[in-house]
Amino acid sequence: MSAMDDLLAFQRQTEALSSVAERLGWDQETVMPRGATEQRSEEMAAMEEVLHERRTDPRIGEWLAAAEPSTEAETRIVELINRDFTRACRVPSRLASEIARTTSLAQGIWAEARANEAPEDYLPVLDKVLSLKREEAAALADGGDLYDALLDDYEPETTGAEIATLFDAMRPRLVALREDVLGAERQPQQLDGHFPQETQLRLARVCAAGFGYDWTRGRLDLAVHPFSSGRWQDSRITTRVVETDPFNCLYSTIHEVGHSSYEQGIDDDYAFTPLGRGVSMGVHESQSRIYENQMGRGRAFTGWLFNRMSDAFDGLNIGDADAFYATVNRVAPGYIRTEADEVQYNLHIMLRFDLERELISGRLETEDLVEAWNARFLKDFGVAVDRPSNGLLQDVHWSVGLFGYFPTYALGNVYAGCLNTALRKAVPDLDESLARGDASPGVEWLRENLQRHGGLMPPRRLIEEATGAAIGPEPLLDYLEEKFGRIYGL
Amino acid sequence: MSAMDDLLAFQRQTEALSSVAERLGWDQETVMPRGATEQRSEEMAAMEEVLHERRTDPRIGEWLAAAEPSTEAETRIVELINRDFTRACRVPSRLASEIARTTSLAQGIWAEARANEAPEDYLPVLDKVLSLKREEAAALADGGDLYDALLDDYEPETTGAEIATLFDAMRPRLVALREDVLGAERQPQQLDGHFPQETQLRLARVCAAGFGYDWTRGRLDLAVHPFSSGRWQDSRITTRVVETDPFNCLYSTIHEVGHSSYEQGIDDDYAFTPLGRGVSMGVHESQSRIYENQMGRGRAFTGWLFNRMSDAFDGLNIGDADAFYATVNRVAPGYIRTEADEVQYNLHIMLRFDLERELISGRLETEDLVEAWNARFLKDFGVAVDRPSNGLLQDVHWSVGLFGYFPTYALGNVYAGCLNTALRKAVPDLDESLARGDASPGVEWLRENLQRHGGLMPPRRLIEEATGAAIGPEPLLDYLEEKFGRIYGL
Repeated sequence: MSAMDDLLAFQRQTEALSSVAERLGWDQETVMPRGATEQRSEEMAAMEEVLHERRTDPRIGEWLAAAEPSTEAETRIVELINRDFTRACRVPSRLASEIARTTSLAQGIWAEARANEAPEDYLPVLDKVLSLKREEAAALADGGDLYDALLDDYEPETTGAEIATLFDAMRPRLVALREDVLGAERQPQQLDGHFPQETQLRLARVCAAGFGYDWTRGRLDLAVHPFSSGRWQDSRITTRVVETDPFNCLYSTIHEVGHSSYEQGIDDDYAFTPLGRGVSMGVHESQSRIYENQMGRGRAFTGWLFNRMSDAFDGLNIGDADAFYATVNRVAPGYIRTEADEVQYNLHIMLRFDLERELISGRLETEDLVEAWNARFLKDFGVAVDRPSNGLLQDVHWSVGLFGYFPTYALGNVYAGCLNTALRKAVPDLDESLARGDASPGVEWLRENLQRHGGLMPPRRLIEEATGAAIGPEPLLDYLEEKFGRIYGL
Repeated sequence: MSAMDDLLAFQRQTEALSSVAERLGWDQETVMPRGATEQRSEEMAAMEEVLHERRTDPRIGEWLAAAEPSTEAETRIVELINRDFTRACRVPSRLASEIARTTSLAQGIWAEARANEAPEDYLPVLDKVLSLKREEAAALADGGDLYDALLDDYEPETTGAEIATLFDAMRPRLVALREDVLGAERQPQQLDGHFPQETQLRLARVCAAGFGYDWTRGRLDLAVHPFSSGRWQDSRITTRVVETDPFNCLYSTIHEVGHSSYEQGIDDDYAFTPLGRGVSMGVHESQSRIYENQMGRGRAFTGWLFNRMSDAFDGLNIGDADAFYATVNRVAPGYIRTEADEVQYNLHIMLRFDLERELISGRLETEDLVEAWNARFLKDFGVAVDRPSNGLLQDVHWSVGLFGYFPTYALGNVYAGCLNTALRKAVPDLDESLARGDASPGVEWLRENLQRHGGLMPPRRLIEEATGAAIGPEPLLDYLEEKFGRIYGL
């Protein structure tokens, strides 16, 4: 056995174990009995300790030093293992455990504070999480920028400064579009009615199949917050059902199919290597967004969906497919990021991105966070936050230590905009299929040009090779202005 | 930290990891997408390797040598860890992997041979499994009896010779009872009809609740072969539905509740120690059997069930509760162990026990196995096996290397007989509750006298302390003769 063989064999097992840990997370959110939390937390901790030991195993350093990769894929595998090994070794075990313990505690405190509208109960533990994450960032950054060191976990090879430039360029056009749309004379109808759970789920399965979800390698379950989980042959999705709002279930499903389809589409040869997963959170989100929005909320697909829903629910209060298209894409004022439409979503992200950068750099203190949040919301959205659960307390992310994660949502939208332009050019008759509820020509193009590569290329190179163009915000902004301009008669 | 603390902390993590592996098994049999087998086998193998490394970790030997247990529980924990460590160290890794690989292969070959009625396709791989298991037994036995070394994995502190004596004492009375019952003039009616899945499952849940199943720490799913899985706060059960035979679903459920209830009933303090699981397969089976048979198939509970089923299925073809009781306990000739009634079940086990002891000792060759099986079946059951899938090919056990496992089923019945005698004496009005579908006084007695102790005492001492009497076959045989004598008017 060469050092390269040893390294690959060891990594294979680590990947398998990490896949087991992920499956345990799925179990917890979908099927686990509610009385099993204590047991599960001990099981997860044991898995995490095994994984941490493996990720910092000194033999990895020796194998890396002696490894002689012989293909492009092997070279990239060595690069990614080296990256993870270096990062894992930089964080002391003591700090890693303390972060795990504190964030687990903080998540509970956050949930209670949100229920009680009491940010003052949450801020002390958030402050503790923040200072631990800053300590982690300092260990990872090795003298570099703290925020970039955290961002690197979710979107490698991008910096906070670059994202700030990108977002600053986007904000004025998004704010203007939001104002035009909300002030427009023509306003879409709302969908009214009662939509039984079983029918919603049946339709969600039809949609998932239309977007190429492979049921032999996945399944659909209910969860409080929809997510996708797992890779390769076992990539599962979840959705939720609100019986007054079927779009919630249907578009959550299509969104998660985007994530899951990416994992299902990765080259089999990469299974159980660092290439066998989506390459970054931003690229992952680009897949979920282009499935959900550019394909799923387009005029063609919603035309098909109008007929299917009319049949399934014995008629709708919306008169025709054009009106239904407007309803699906209705823009309404709102405080909550997860409920935001395509126009406003990125503004929510920008707010969080700017605040978390300030927090990590130390320019903003947690005690001033509520005020900073509310001031910024008023400025960008034109309304005052009415209660803490509609403001700072709406997101779990920071409580569990996810700093540097939020911007990947908006990066995903930007990538989806770029990909959509290239896709429409490459598959000019895509809408003809979408009008039959069939997204397969789009899925196939994405699979061939992006998904199958897994982690083979860094995120930006992957998007640029797939699109044949530099990454920029214009395709997304042009698409949004064109689409919503038309719907709202601007 | 003392050596005792180190030992306990290390064991705690091992128990948690082994609980994760068990959960993965549950996932595979209930919810896993069918295309995920390759991935899952790699995940399971990685977990098994981690567990094997931990079980043979040399530090365990050092801690054991220096550990100073200070309570009865700690003394027993040290004893059990020592036992597992000694056993794990005796089996070379090479052999353990070869057994894992061969049995995984053999299971597939067995399934195909069964489908094709082709024992000749199965025997070569069975022979390989057998020779590997004999090698393992030799390593474990350290000069002692080979079969006992394997039995020790499932029913510690019992020998093949003791079981043979027990079974030899039971066989004549069981054979005689079987003949009397099958030849009796009075024969119970069969249940006829179509019983929809949803109604069966609803009723199964009611039965499970009546037998004290804690839904906050468990759940019920469908599986091809019903099983229970997991411990402490997360002990799940499965059942199956045959729409022409509701007893299959209902009594499988009650049986699995017996297993699961045992795990749920173990003292919380023992969680994540070797005391925190059922102490042996025989004791486990005693719980599932006393729930299913002595309580579940008694006149009192079946009287309640008759009314519930009549309501749920809009009437039955059985006239009254007495006739229904006879129907539930109907004895019919049959080849299949898993479908056998209380009278014939143990005869199936004895056949397998005698054959597998001969196989392990080398007195019987696999090439003569079909003939030996069929001859013995004819002798004990009075009919010739009509096809291989009704004979040797009906059980998966040997293909996966389970030699020494079968007798624990019958031991469980014997233990259940002993427990039932003590229980009826301690709770004389148990039938009054069972007649209302409520087994809780029985469950509470079992919990208090047996279940809560987990692994604290060795199996036989546990049963003898619970019953206040020596273990013997008479209580079971007396119970069977009395019950079936009455039903069949003997």
